[in-house]
Amino acid sequence: MKMTKLFPRTRYGEVGATTAAHALLLKAGFIKQLAVGSYILLPLGFRVWQNVQRIVWDEMEEKGVQNLQVPIMQPKELWVKSGRWQKYQDAKTMFQTTERHSGAVFGLAPTAEEPLTWLAGESQLSHKDLPLSWHQIGWKFRDEKRPRHGLLRCREFDMSDGYSFDKDEVGMRTSFEMFREIYRCIFHKVGLRDCIYVQADSGAIGGKGSAEFMALSDEGGEDTLLTCSDCSYGANVDKAGSIVPEATRPADTSVALHLEYTPTARTVEELTGLFPGVDATRMVKTIIFTVDGELGEEKWYQVAVCIRGDLEVNEVKLLNALGAQSVSPAEPSVVRAVTGADVGFAGPIGLENVREILFDRSVEGLSNFLCGGNKSGYHYLDVVPGRDFTAPSRFYDLHRAVSGHTCPECKCSLLRESRGIEVGHIFMLQTGYSLSMGAMYRGEDGQAHPLWMGCYGIGTTRLVQAIAEQNRDEKGLIWPESVAPYLVEIVPLKYDDTHQQPLADALYAGLKARGTSVLLDDRAVSAGVKFKDADLIGCPWRVTIGRRAPESIVELWNRRTGEMVEMTIQEVLKKV
Amino acid sequence: MKMTKLFPRTRYGEVGATTAAHALLLKAGFIKQLAVGSYILLPLGFRVWQNVQRIVWDEMEEKGVQNLQVPIMQPKELWVKSGRWQKYQDAKTMFQTTERHSGAVFGLAPTAEEPLTWLAGESQLSHKDLPLSWHQIGWKFRDEKRPRHGLLRCREFDMSDGYSFDKDEVGMRTSFEMFREIYRCIFHKVGLRDCIYVQADSGAIGGKGSAEFMALSDEGGEDTLLTCSDCSYGANVDKAGSIVPEATRPADTSVALHLEYTPTARTVEELTGLFPGVDATRMVKTIIFTVDGELGEEKWYQVAVCIRGDLEVNEVKLLNALGAQSVSPAEPSVVRAVTGADVGFAGPIGLENVREILFDRSVEGLSNFLCGGNKSGYHYLDVVPGRDFTAPSRFYDLHRAVSGHTCPECKCSLLRESRGIEVGHIFMLQTGYSLSMGAMYRGEDGQAHPLWMGCYGIGTTRLVQAIAEQNRDEKGLIWPESVAPYLVEIVPLKYDDTHQQPLADALYAGLKARGTSVLLDDRAVSAGVKFKDADLIGCPWRVTIGRRAPESIVELWNRRTGEMVEMTIQEVLKKV
Repeated sequence: MKMTKLFPRTRYGEVGATTAAHALLLKAGFIKQLAVGSYILLPLGFRVWQNVQRIVWDEMEEKGVQNLQVPIMQPKELWVKSGRWQKYQDAKTMFQTTERHSGAVFGLAPTAEEPLTWLAGESQLSHKDLPLSWHQIGWKFRDEKRPRHGLLRCREFDMSDGYSFDKDEVGMRTSFEMFREIYRCIFHKVGLRDCIYVQADSGAIGGKGSAEFMALSDEGGEDTLLTCSDCSYGANVDKAGSIVPEATRPADTSVALHLEYTPTARTVEELTGLFPGVDATRMVKTIIFTVDGELGEEKWYQVAVCIRGDLEVNEVKLLNALGAQSVSPAEPSVVRAVTGADVGFAGPIGLENVREILFDRSVEGLSNFLCGGNKSGYHYLDVVPGRDFTAPSRFYDLHRAVSGHTCPECKCSLLRESRGIEVGHIFMLQTGYSLSMGAMYRGEDGQAHPLWMGCYGIGTTRLVQAIAEQNRDEKGLIWPESVAPYLVEIVPLKYDDTHQQPLADALYAGLKARGTSVLLDDRAVSAGVKFKDADLIGCPWRVTIGRRAPESIVELWNRRTGEMVEMTIQEVLKKV
Repeated sequence: MKMTKLFPRTRYGEVGATTAAHALLLKAGFIKQLAVGSYILLPLGFRVWQNVQRIVWDEMEEKGVQNLQVPIMQPKELWVKSGRWQKYQDAKTMFQTTERHSGAVFGLAPTAEEPLTWLAGESQLSHKDLPLSWHQIGWKFRDEKRPRHGLLRCREFDMSDGYSFDKDEVGMRTSFEMFREIYRCIFHKVGLRDCIYVQADSGAIGGKGSAEFMALSDEGGEDTLLTCSDCSYGANVDKAGSIVPEATRPADTSVALHLEYTPTARTVEELTGLFPGVDATRMVKTIIFTVDGELGEEKWYQVAVCIRGDLEVNEVKLLNALGAQSVSPAEPSVVRAVTGADVGFAGPIGLENVREILFDRSVEGLSNFLCGGNKSGYHYLDVVPGRDFTAPSRFYDLHRAVSGHTCPECKCSLLRESRGIEVGHIFMLQTGYSLSMGAMYRGEDGQAHPLWMGCYGIGTTRLVQAIAEQNRDEKGLIWPESVAPYLVEIVPLKYDDTHQQPLADALYAGLKARGTSVLLDDRAVSAGVKFKDADLIGCPWRVTIGRRAPESIVELWNRRTGEMVEMTIQEVLKKV
């Protein structure tokens, strides 16, 4: 490709980006926003994305996964059958459209479990045909409330989605491991350098176990991860368990409960100021949440969560514990109605106007603690569960794991937090979809059995940005060779020079003839502009043609290392 | 790929198809309908489609066209700006969806002139940057009233769409010719055998000139084409002009107009029976049409079309002559209200309750003709224009060209009708979109000038079926090598045979190692079933391993010619 034909061009200055890679992709002319959360993949971005797709397709094909393509408009009936239509409607995350002539309603694919479970059910499978797996790459749609960070959180994005079908749980787990290995290979091949595998929350997809592949990126990462510094444990913060530091003081149940007047203290910090002897690990925060219940239940209700004062509630864990649609901290007026007190004074003693009080594991065994008095301006001290209120019969993992907590797996080393971009998410779906949609196989016993399913997703457009996030410097992008828009950029300092042009053209033709992708900067602009653009665009190799052109000597630059070697164009052809 | 992994499998019996290729694609397991007008591309179909896409992308890249990718959800604002939003709404051909959080409305891409005209406008182009052209392949959506014929008329389909931008009309025509040549190469490379280039109607895309590439297919063709048997003239019936056969009798204006009682004759045939001396070329049919006017006009009105009795009105030509949204023959009650007579008795004399009477060219110079009396049961004879009613000041080309009419180009040879599948449609858009959307370039004079545009479309999914339509026999599909799902299918008669399996596996591995796509039928089914499936699926080459396996001799069959040669697997590897 010749640069004079390449549009739109690079641009500098403020581009309104929120991460480094997002800014570089905009500046270098890889993407352009068409609407909020929706991007045109410009010629350079298109080539990177196509390279990513090709790696994914080939890897699937290589491992015996069948590539196919499912329509974007998915019939509502299939989603009603799986039970997900109403959930997605309630969550307002699905775009829908209506066929005007017949009135038929469709959802724009957020994923494709429904059509592929249906296809499996239609395929009259026998136990001999299993395991079976399908894969596609296609555009997906999610009505994100706040699209952000360029290609990371879009309303329209490209996704590779795989689906496995097995006869039993063992088979499902084997397929899950196969896809895990496929994913590992893909992320390696596309040039992600730091990519870790963590436990994850399954969200709207459902199923009983899921894991994410996270491309680590301090600046670009949207997700918080906890990893063990010693063992292999890693998890998304929404899923991560942790063993919290011990409380600071032993319990003494002989001390009686007493109510203290604390009008100026509502927060843990304020209470610590008031009672210097009671640190945060001896306080219990009681937080009221408003819950949007699961389908078929009463729509809105309140719960309270009791958690140790030094910890925070992870709302995703709470959501999952309740099996609810959504949770959020209750409005002050609701808190007053429920507790009888202003915000900051709630506690488990005598709290009745909530559907349930959930106790975090951090509260288990805690005694002589401080908590709110359900009366504005008052807190209880030396609270003893079982004596001062009904002892909890069950504790939940509701707290947010943070750096410094102990690993729940090895129970020994400390967890540390990092930031990552979710590039893959794999799920063990079990038989939920196949049962609801009637996707069965004929077993050895001649009977119909539900298929055991797994599903597997890679965000292929977000992967482009994740790769960019991990492969860049202050001057611009540094593409891994496997996905680079062009492997080589030829930069003649003056293209119209009588020595430089023939050399540049010969090298361009020679590389093309060998099937090597090559960009030639044939513009009539200064060498400085060309170098700046070349660094920004980030092709792995740059061939500069200038001073020694009369001797047929050119410079081969490595974008990543900055190394330069002078050579002839024949040597360049051999080398790259 | 091994056949034991390939699902869904072939199926036989009734599949509910409407064309031969549609049936074969369903039976052989290339496609499966998900909803009316929407198909899953199954693994075999996916591979053909990918091969087609690859050929298109490579050809564009080769000719300097930039490949990119535009979102499917297109902001309503862009379509309002171009003036097409309301038109598509009125025609009910656009799917739309609403972003629930902001209320923003989007159309699901039927084409992509709007975003690409916008992108060109945003690119700050100067005259030095032109010509410029972009291309993408992406899913398109059209709310078809009656989806039909498999991949030919779908609500969701894949399309290659290219866009060219030039500084003047000469440039636009040069780009148009470049794309025409690109298309010719693509259709040749994908293996279309009979593909012709014809003039076409521009429809909803607009512009001043368009042409279609038609894959000829008597059985599968949706469109009717007229081609000259001598010169290069060819046109879609909706566009085709023709010189009609002379009328049979000279005029004699001395004979006076007379009204005849014809209660039993409403049609040309019935009138010919009643007046044997007056054949159809001496009759003028007057047909009342109800018109849905263009935006901003009175919504519904009637026109009359007068046309020679041996000809039919082409409604697309009428639509274009009126610049209307839609036309259809008026309901009988409307005909009575407008003409004062039952259907079958309309005529131009005294016809006043229509907005306009349009005369087809076939009526030009016609005299002493028969027409309706605008009175039930009566027809006029020996009507002379100018004497018996105001002579028309203008004649239109409204008749349907048919086989036997004379070519309008060479004015000498006869036209003949054939059937074709539209596989490509290319348009000279001129400056309509760039003016309405403000897409300008800076000219040599330093001023802003509108870009001259062209747009170019290939239906890539419909192309799969068009190729299938032209490449098949009574046993199944016969894929051209360039797009075949697998180049070779290996069929061991008994895969578990001690001689056959090693040979089959060695050949399979050998072909894969050379990058040749290969399908191995490793199923434990009879040779007859395997052969039948192989013929149906239609890989270009079949290697049968059987009787002479102990001698390491296999049979190489050519699916198209049926030729077979015995050879070793080393020879097979060399040959294919």
